[in-house]
Amino acid sequence: MLTVEEAQQAVLASVEALPPERMPLLQAMGCVLAEALVAGIALPPFDNSAMDGYAVIAEDTRGATPGTPRALAVIEDLPAGKSPTRGIERGKAARIMTGAAVPAGADAVVIVEHTRPGPSGSAEVLVEARPGDNIRSAGEDIRAGEVALPPGQVLGPAELGLAAALGYTHVTVIRRPRVAIVTTGSELIPPGQDLPPAAIYNSNQVTLAARVLGAGAEVAQLLHVADDEGAVEGALRRCSEADLILTTGGVSVGEYDFVKAALERLGEIRFWRVLMKPGKPVAFGKVLGRPLFGLPGNPLSALVTFEILVAPALRKMAGREDCLPRTAQAALLTDVSHTPPRRDYVQALAQLTEDGYLVQPAAKRGSAMLTSAVGANCLLVIPEQSTGLRAGEQVTIILLPHRHGP
Amino acid sequence: MLTVEEAQQAVLASVEALPPERMPLLQAMGCVLAEALVAGIALPPFDNSAMDGYAVIAEDTRGATPGTPRALAVIEDLPAGKSPTRGIERGKAARIMTGAAVPAGADAVVIVEHTRPGPSGSAEVLVEARPGDNIRSAGEDIRAGEVALPPGQVLGPAELGLAAALGYTHVTVIRRPRVAIVTTGSELIPPGQDLPPAAIYNSNQVTLAARVLGAGAEVAQLLHVADDEGAVEGALRRCSEADLILTTGGVSVGEYDFVKAALERLGEIRFWRVLMKPGKPVAFGKVLGRPLFGLPGNPLSALVTFEILVAPALRKMAGREDCLPRTAQAALLTDVSHTPPRRDYVQALAQLTEDGYLVQPAAKRGSAMLTSAVGANCLLVIPEQSTGLRAGEQVTIILLPHRHGP
Repeated sequence: MLTVEEAQQAVLASVEALPPERMPLLQAMGCVLAEALVAGIALPPFDNSAMDGYAVIAEDTRGATPGTPRALAVIEDLPAGKSPTRGIERGKAARIMTGAAVPAGADAVVIVEHTRPGPSGSAEVLVEARPGDNIRSAGEDIRAGEVALPPGQVLGPAELGLAAALGYTHVTVIRRPRVAIVTTGSELIPPGQDLPPAAIYNSNQVTLAARVLGAGAEVAQLLHVADDEGAVEGALRRCSEADLILTTGGVSVGEYDFVKAALERLGEIRFWRVLMKPGKPVAFGKVLGRPLFGLPGNPLSALVTFEILVAPALRKMAGREDCLPRTAQAALLTDVSHTPPRRDYVQALAQLTEDGYLVQPAAKRGSAMLTSAVGANCLLVIPEQSTGLRAGEQVTIILLPHRHGP
Repeated sequence: MLTVEEAQQAVLASVEALPPERMPLLQAMGCVLAEALVAGIALPPFDNSAMDGYAVIAEDTRGATPGTPRALAVIEDLPAGKSPTRGIERGKAARIMTGAAVPAGADAVVIVEHTRPGPSGSAEVLVEARPGDNIRSAGEDIRAGEVALPPGQVLGPAELGLAAALGYTHVTVIRRPRVAIVTTGSELIPPGQDLPPAAIYNSNQVTLAARVLGAGAEVAQLLHVADDEGAVEGALRRCSEADLILTTGGVSVGEYDFVKAALERLGEIRFWRVLMKPGKPVAFGKVLGRPLFGLPGNPLSALVTFEILVAPALRKMAGREDCLPRTAQAALLTDVSHTPPRRDYVQALAQLTEDGYLVQPAAKRGSAMLTSAVGANCLLVIPEQSTGLRAGEQVTIILLPHRHGP
């Protein structure tokens, strides 16, 4: 049986970043840039005013005070977007708005609050200006030819805005992984139908679909099949659009465990047991050339194995470098029991305080206890050989990314 | 001029949670539940086996060891989903798979690894079982009639899975805010076109659209208008589908600042200046009955005012209780200068270590420095009256939620 680290390494060694794809900026939100984005223009593209006021020659304002204002003839009005038609000479000024191009000759902008109207449409400057005042110089943010965004950069609002500011409408990013979800189990009934005896509702389908979407990946297919060898195999063959297949159920030791059988027949199993709890009976391999995770059928086991093994694979496929689950240290609020030898992941609620994280494990445990995951925002990690953790101890938690969202 | 706290309180006092809407589970991902979800069935719905093995009467296994096995006649095979047809009597057992209903009479499941095949199709039990072993009792996760999810619960994969497990296909949630984005400025050109002199590319449109989507809200409209009183007013009138309007530009003191003028004419201004940097010239009010934020035109100012003022409004409209930006304490890695009296928000990179967060402010500052936001995952908060922060100090950071994602 593999340790969690061995299983994670086996997974990450088996999947690769997907090919790049050119897409409109907004579609690329959250994706990883596949190639450097080079600035084709400078930012700002031209010297421009940082404030509303008057473009002046600083020298003309020397000694200006409210008592000894310097009157300048206003030769032009420059709202943002209007090109100056004339340069500024000694004794002259142009009225200028924020973002407007600074006319040739001017070397400072006096903010409107430091001026007052003078006679014959002139402006009286009341405060001395220094060269450069309130001017944003061409290229001060980025120069033409510089790398604006390196390959590997995750694109958020600011990065997409920078690409737009440089005039780009599209970027080339690693495309989103497409995931097929195949739930298996003759006992599973779609929600909304009547529940026959011995049957339960299929909850893994929506849980995994939601989690896949939350990971920035796409749901390519949603299939459900009964415990039937041919049906399982047929479903796996239908996942030809997917970059990754997730199944639930059918990976234990029973003779109805057809996922494992199909994996053996159509591809190869890399592992099918991991020293973790919940989630021991989790399989990973390739089927028809595609990576496949055979997740346990228990809802909580499926959720936990997703965080520990599937989410890292999706991150690697999406081109990310930080693939493993994000951990933090936290002070444990209550005792937690544990029996070796598996690493236990307990649904828990972490609260970030001025003294760091405090973590409260869910009251109920057990791989079928879906209610224990309600409101949980982290997994408390109990080391393999621990015989229990005590309140007050510093412990490791895994932050659930979809809970630390908007 | 309002302090940041006063502005945030004014905003939160002016917006309300949107009306509830019934939607399919997957669509409700990330939304807030509007009414309690009550369990109509128990979970699990019936006593079922936690493992693959044999359903037995525990008493029948007393004294069982590999040397003194207890042979039981196997009367039935129970894969998951199949209802037992017969009860278990003394000396009998049923082969049972994980998730299958435990037949009447049986009070324990012996895992298959603790059995071996016996003569005439019997099973030999090699280890003593105790009543309850490997049985998940009906209702142990939740009982029928219990509140499964309280109103106000944010719906993630686990909560949606629980709703599905209870047989629900839809939930009633606070609907997503629909946001109209109106960029203003005669100097702004859409990316992809040639850039005339004195013009710049419109970056705020994609930045804000991406941030709105990242907040789990919807982009209802994307409009751009020149600095023209009638055009601005016309655009605001066209935002009739939106729950919230965001504008950029046009809120300063210049006579081209038509957003402020339109806000005064079509509605009311609550505030239009906040003691923060960047982002001082930010307006908030209502226009034609809708809340409107007049964000500054500088890209970085627009981003920062979004985090500090708009994101809290969107959270309140989405029904969340935790509306204000999430903060943390961090150890500052380099000195940062500051001049009173505005609160400064500096783009920064926070790293979570075993000793807590470390934070490195961006090298460049200035409200037009969009590159400073590249890769930033937090905002360093510099208090109003600070005369600078020193390396090693504990400082407050605001975690950018879209950066602590998947």
